[in-house]
This record gives sequence, C-alpha cells and structure tokens, in this order.
Amino acid sequence: MDKKEKLVEAITPINEDFAQWYTDICLKAELVDYSSVKGCVILRPYGYAIWENIMHLLDARFKATGHENVAMPLLIPESLLQKEKDHVEGFAPEVAWVTMGGAEQLEDRLCVRPTSETLFCDHFAHVLHSYRDLPMKYNQWCSVVRWEKTTRPFLRTREFWWQEGHTIHETAEEAIAETEQQLETYADFCEKDLNIPVLKGRKTEKEKFAGAEATYSIEAMMHDGKALQSGTSHYFGDGFSRAFGVQFTGRDNTLQYPYQTSWGVSTRLIGAIIMTHGDDEGLILPPAVAPVQVVVVPVAAHKPGVLEKARELAERLGKTFRVKVDDSDKAPGWKFAQWEMKGVPLRLEIGPKDIEKEQCVLVRRDTREKLFVRWDELETAVPSALAALGQSLFDRAAENRARRTWSAATMEEVLSHAEENGYIQTMWCGERACEEAMKEKAGLTSRCIPFVQEHLGDVCPVCGKPAKQMIVWGRAY
Amino acid sequence: MDKKEKLVEAITPINEDFAQWYTDICLKAELVDYSSVKGCVILRPYGYAIWENIMHLLDARFKATGHENVAMPLLIPESLLQKEKDHVEGFAPEVAWVTMGGAEQLEDRLCVRPTSETLFCDHFAHVLHSYRDLPMKYNQWCSVVRWEKTTRPFLRTREFWWQEGHTIHETAEEAIAETEQQLETYADFCEKDLNIPVLKGRKTEKEKFAGAEATYSIEAMMHDGKALQSGTSHYFGDGFSRAFGVQFTGRDNTLQYPYQTSWGVSTRLIGAIIMTHGDDEGLILPPAVAPVQVVVVPVAAHKPGVLEKARELAERLGKTFRVKVDDSDKAPGWKFAQWEMKGVPLRLEIGPKDIEKEQCVLVRRDTREKLFVRWDELETAVPSALAALGQSLFDRAAENRARRTWSAATMEEVLSHAEENGYIQTMWCGERACEEAMKEKAGLTSRCIPFVQEHLGDVCPVCGKPAKQMIVWGRAY
Repeated sequence: MDKKEKLVEAITPINEDFAQWYTDICLKAELVDYSSVKGCVILRPYGYAIWENIMHLLDARFKATGHENVAMPLLIPESLLQKEKDHVEGFAPEVAWVTMGGAEQLEDRLCVRPTSETLFCDHFAHVLHSYRDLPMKYNQWCSVVRWEKTTRPFLRTREFWWQEGHTIHETAEEAIAETEQQLETYADFCEKDLNIPVLKGRKTEKEKFAGAEATYSIEAMMHDGKALQSGTSHYFGDGFSRAFGVQFTGRDNTLQYPYQTSWGVSTRLIGAIIMTHGDDEGLILPPAVAPVQVVVVPVAAHKPGVLEKARELAERLGKTFRVKVDDSDKAPGWKFAQWEMKGVPLRLEIGPKDIEKEQCVLVRRDTREKLFVRWDELETAVPSALAALGQSLFDRAAENRARRTWSAATMEEVLSHAEENGYIQTMWCGERACEEAMKEKAGLTSRCIPFVQEHLGDVCPVCGKPAKQMIVWGRAY
Repeated sequence: MDKKEKLVEAITPINEDFAQWYTDICLKAELVDYSSVKGCVILRPYGYAIWENIMHLLDARFKATGHENVAMPLLIPESLLQKEKDHVEGFAPEVAWVTMGGAEQLEDRLCVRPTSETLFCDHFAHVLHSYRDLPMKYNQWCSVVRWEKTTRPFLRTREFWWQEGHTIHETAEEAIAETEQQLETYADFCEKDLNIPVLKGRKTEKEKFAGAEATYSIEAMMHDGKALQSGTSHYFGDGFSRAFGVQFTGRDNTLQYPYQTSWGVSTRLIGAIIMTHGDDEGLILPPAVAPVQVVVVPVAAHKPGVLEKARELAERLGKTFRVKVDDSDKAPGWKFAQWEMKGVPLRLEIGPKDIEKEQCVLVRRDTREKLFVRWDELETAVPSALAALGQSLFDRAAENRARRTWSAATMEEVLSHAEENGYIQTMWCGERACEEAMKEKAGLTSRCIPFVQEHLGDVCPVCGKPAKQMIVWGRAY
C-alpha cells in the first residue's frame, strides 16, 4: 500500500489549493500535456477519449434533431470578419493573424477562426435560394483560436476544441425555437450524461455574444462555488443575414433575410467534469463519458485461474461496457490508486477467494462502497452500480449548489454572502451601470437571468429603482 | 423525363473534358462549395458525410490495432519546425505564418501545421521515459494547411482534412513493421471499402517525405489513366528522435532513441472515389461510405398506400442500412437523376402496380440493372445488390488499370506508351538522374517501386546501365 499512498500524496488536497489540485489532476490523470506553443495544450489519449465520448453523444443528439455536419476553412479573410460591426469589435482584438503564405506577404490578412459565423454567412449566401432550402441546420467539430493572455487547461487556452452549430430559418419564431432547443439539448446532456446540474438563463446585454440579439447559457457550479459557463446558444435575428447579404425568395415571391442562430460547447466541459466531481484521490468520471467504465484488477494474479477469470469477466462485460483489464506487473494497491486518479467509475476486483465463491468485488469510485457480486449477476449489477454512481454525482453537485445559493434583497446581504463563492440571486433593474457596480463593489459578475424566475422583492439592490427580473451573480472561471 | 435530361445535360461528359466533369460533380453532387479563402473549400453536408464514414471505418481499424487518438496544437513555433533539417526545408516554403497574436507582434513566428511530426516529437520527449512506455501509437484527425499555388477540390487545396498517425517504437524492426502494417491497412480499406484497387510500393529518394528514411505509398489509377497517390506511410528511423532529443531508458538501462513512423490519408480519397467510379450521370459511391445507401422513391405517391408502403420499407431497411425516402414534391424522373448525380448505390422504386404484386424495384446505380424484389426478400436482396455493385466497381477499375498498364524495355517503348495516360513499368538503375530524365523526355514521374516486382530486363532504359529494380511511372494528380 505504500506505493498507493505515494501516488495519492502527489496530488494537492482539494480544500488546500483548488487551483493546484485542478492542475495536478489534468497532468496526473494524463488528460493533457503542455505544448511548446504558449497557451496551447495537447489532449493526451485519455483526455481525448473523454472528448470523443462527448462528441459522440452530442453528435447523435444533433443528428436526431436534423442537424448536418460540415467543415469550413480555418482561416477567415480580414475583409470578411469586418462585415458585421459588433462581431469584429468583439473578436478582432483576440485573434491570431496569418500575414504570410510561404514567402509571400498577404494583401488581405487571414485570421485563424475564433468562431465561424462569418464563414457560415458567406456560405449561406452562396447556397441559399428559396424558402424550400430552409431551414439549414449545420454544425462543425473543430478547434478555434483566441489569443488569451492567461490560460489554464480546458478552461481557457489559446486553442480549444469545440462544436459550433449555425442555422438559418425562414422565421424569427423558428430561429428562437432552435436557440431554445439547442440550449435544452446542452442542459439535458450535462445533467443526464455528465451528471452536472445546470442553471439555464439569458445573458445580460453586457455579457452576450458579439453580434447576437440574445445569448442563452447553461451555468454549472464547480466544487469551489465558482461558476463555469458551460454552453451557449445565440439568437442573431437577421443581423448577420443583412450584413452578409444572405437572402432567399420567400413564399410570397419577395426577397427576404433568414433568421439565424449559433450554439457551441467545448472541451471546457472536461474542466467542468473535473471541478464538479473530482476529489482528493483524483478524477471521478461520469459513466456516460468515461473512456474506461469498469477496470478489472486481478488480485494475486499469479495464482492459477485468476487472470483467466479476470479476462473472462472483462470479455463478458466488454460486450456492453468499456472495460479494461489491468494485467500489468504493478501491485494491486498501485493499480487501485492509478485508476482512482483516472476516475474510472467502477473497479472489479477478483482474487482466489472470490473464485472459490464464484463472486467478485465491485468498488464504486465515488463512495468506495464495496459490492460482492455473483458472476451470474454481473450483467445487472454493473449497470445498476454505474447508474447509482451517476445519480449520486449529480445529487452531490446539486447539494453543493443548493448550499452555496443565496438570495439577497440589499447590497449588505449581497456583500455578506459575497465573501464565499456561490450564486447570489437578486432582483435587477436591467441597467448596465448596476451590473458594473456589482462587479466593483462585490466582485461579482452576472451569470444569467434564469428562465425560472422568483420574486425576491420589488427593487434592484444596487440602485433601489424598480426591478425588472431576478438575476444570478457569481464569480466565474 | 425532360427534367431528368435537363439535369443530366448540366454535367460535362466524362470523355469530353475530364477536368470539367470532375469539377461539375464536386459542385452538382453538393460535395463542396468554394470559399472566400483562396484555395480553400467548404465540405458541404453530403461531402462531409462521406468523410465521416471514411473516418469512422478507418478509426475502427486504427483502434483495433492499438492506436489511440490525441489532439495536438494547430500552430508550430518556427524554432520547433527548424529542428529537423530536411523536414524544415521540405515544408517551410509552403506554410502559412502567424506573425501577430491580437495586436502583438510575435517574436517566434508560428506556422499553421502542414503536418505534425515536430509537435509529436516534442510531446514524446516529455512523456517518454522507459521502454515500458513503448510503443506509443498515436493518431489525430484534423486539418492541415499547405500554401499551394494551384488548387482543386479534394486533390490539392490549401487546407485539407486528414488523419496523421505518429508512432514510436523500441526497435527499428517494430517501427518498420508498423509502417508496413499501416500501408496494408490503407490498401485493404481502399480495396474493400472504397472498391479502388491500389498499387503498393516504395517511393524513390526524390519523392519521399521530407525527413523520412523511407516512404511507402498506395497509388490508385483514375478513370483517365492518371495516378493518384492515395495514402503514405513513412519510416523515420531514429532521425527525428535524435533531432528532438526523444529518449528512453532501455532494457539494459542505457539511454536510447526510439524508432518512429508516421502515416496519413486525407480527403483526397474523396477525389479518388469520384475519379475512379463516376460516370456521365455523376458520382457513384462505394456502398461502405455512401451517406445514403438506398434511396426510396415512391412512384405515383399520391395514390393510396404508396407513400405509406415506401416509408414502411424504408424503416425496415433503415435498421441495417443508411436509407432515405425522397417524399419531396418533385417528379420521379427528377428524383432519379438527382440521386444518380449524388451516386446513391441503390434506388428502390415503389408504385401502385408494385404494391399489387407485393414487390418493389431495385435499381443499381452503376449498371441501372432493375431487380424486381418481393417485400419479404428485401433483407437479403439489398445487401447482395450492394455487394455486387461494390465488386463490380472494383472490377471495372481493375480492368481500366490493366488496360492502361504497359511494360517497356527501351525508351522508344516508353515514349510510344507515354502518349496515353497509364502506368509504364520499366527496370531502373536507381539513379536520380534517370528519374529526372524520364520526366524531361517522357513527362513521367515515378509512382513507386512496387512491392511485387517483375523482371522486365537487365538494364535501365534511360541510361542502359544495370537495373536494380522494377519501377512504375505515370502522370499524377
């Protein structure tokens, strides 16, 4: 057991230094490596496998709702980026510029895409003719580049991997319904597949996407009480269509502008998984996206029959689950610690005594609860243990969020809660000045105006004027 | 039927202007759109869906042989690119340079990756410690940028999508075996899944990859007799390891350099599919990668029961195949032409008369052969028709290749065959001068030194000196 302890010692305790604990997990669970390109990380096989599972599950959801994948160029001519005024103002300061192709200086600089609205609009203008072509519901899986100053694996890197959906519709109603549907898809995916409860709402004018009429987001609360914006869905109205001359012949034979949306989630979701579910032993992965759902560890593997039985059970379970047998020459204690660090939801131990009893031991990563399971009951015990673990991850996160959510009617109340990280719900007049004052006085930024509203009073706690809605404040990654 | 004819008229006949025919298909089958970024294309949903199927099938093959996916940064610092001398000389002239991040001028320029050997080596140097860590067998799916002067959809574009495998091994033998295995994987995939016969061989020193010890390739012959290099697999020896200081502690406790490989195929394969199988009516897609394998077209769809039966059969087949019902309000003839243009392997027609007889009509895209099939035999008739079509695509391509392959013992014989496009097999002394002379005198470049050698004489037809091996010449895309 000393090797196990040694390995565990190597992580900073979660409540001692959360930031260092996070970095330790990113590296020691072998999710990422730092690269020679400042601010860019490498997704290692285990980290990328989580992203592959996320892509696979989301892609199926997108396709089931009629979306199609495409691939756009990764470079955008400066002249194209400049067509929509708010958009270029929002993104131009943080892009990487290609100024030379081979030995030749380019006349029109190209930026590495920070997001692809401009390219999609340009394409829509080519291929859209009639209302019969609508809706066009496209998505692409790719990476984008934003020249961030301070970076952190998964949360903020100069390059990150994501999907960006871009759709155009005949009517505003349809586009708004699409925006809402995609936010709902993200929320459902986070809650069901990642076991992360999320808050759904609308971003303020200050926080909305550059060029959007409205931005909706899902906000997750991390273990330390900070918020992580985990997915966004934007409604553009016909602003981009007008800026890019995207038009179609309508049912009444007149030329019309389509209404547009875009929506995205990124490898940030892996950061959300780490910071929502992890503990002092390392990562805890939601079963739906865990690259290995069950790790089989033979105990006293040199004894006759042990390795064979371990492999036999693994093969049986492998028909339904992602299973790995750890038959390396390391000691069982070392293996236990390593796979706990990597967050594998279930460990299946099997040794000579288990074989005598025709049983094995299932150990849950989150609670370390041990279940003695007869071989012939494995096919029901494993899915039920995985489901219980998923539910319990969700419940634990929901409890953390409930414990760290406060309502405040006055600035005094806001300030008293703001010493801790969490969500502070208040009424709000809707003015940007009060949003900025909240940042200055309490260090809080607006997370969202939740879809589910509560009446917490009649006035804005900042200015005392009549309130329009409830808003949620917090500190965010 | 006039609409059908009109649509078909819109494509240039294949034997009139092959290049224009190719471009027509790329656009009219809705595979690509030109973008505002010079030399870069957009993969539209139908084109991307073919690529998705290629990725899916190849990825499964890679994983079955123990490869893992990762993601590397898309930017490479110039200082890193320069570490391997041959490599930088080969690639630096054709890269896109990022010189600014936001408003800041970069000290070390970054190139958009043209290929990622340098990044992988840099990463291997971080994560490799002991022989126990070997082999590392990585792959990534991404796009790369090469600043080409003349471009053409799928064949040569400034950005293209591909996979690049990068592996390191304890011994040279293992690395060479990996290089060969991956070439074999590509060849088998092309022949079985894309129905394209390929020639396997080694590239000459002149044509090998910048930095490689040896490059192997698969070469496909297009309908017009030109060759298309369709996949490459490189053996690096320990050259890159030494240049990047990648080392491990060996079994004998000394520091050693691992042996390396890389291998890739790209969206070029879609170009190969078009130019190998297409005809005057448009694309013909290999069943394994066709986004729609069976299109169901109801005839006299307004008659009672027709649409319902079409949907019922589509749903049944949809359990095993990728099926689409075309229930749009277009005329059947228009639909037939459209789905032929898009290369759907099988069309299932069903109308009132078929319903009376409890049958439907299957029409093969390649031969237009009609099969009358009873409903209860569909589940066997469809896979057998798809398999027959696949085999027949392969056979037709193999016949074209056989018809256009000539052996030549003298330059006169070479020149007489070189008027047509095809493969010319000759003996070769192995000298670069003769390779260059062949280009100058006959307009031919070396395709490869085939693994399967024949003895066609004793001397090189160019210089008359003793020949070392048989080589294949041709003209290439």
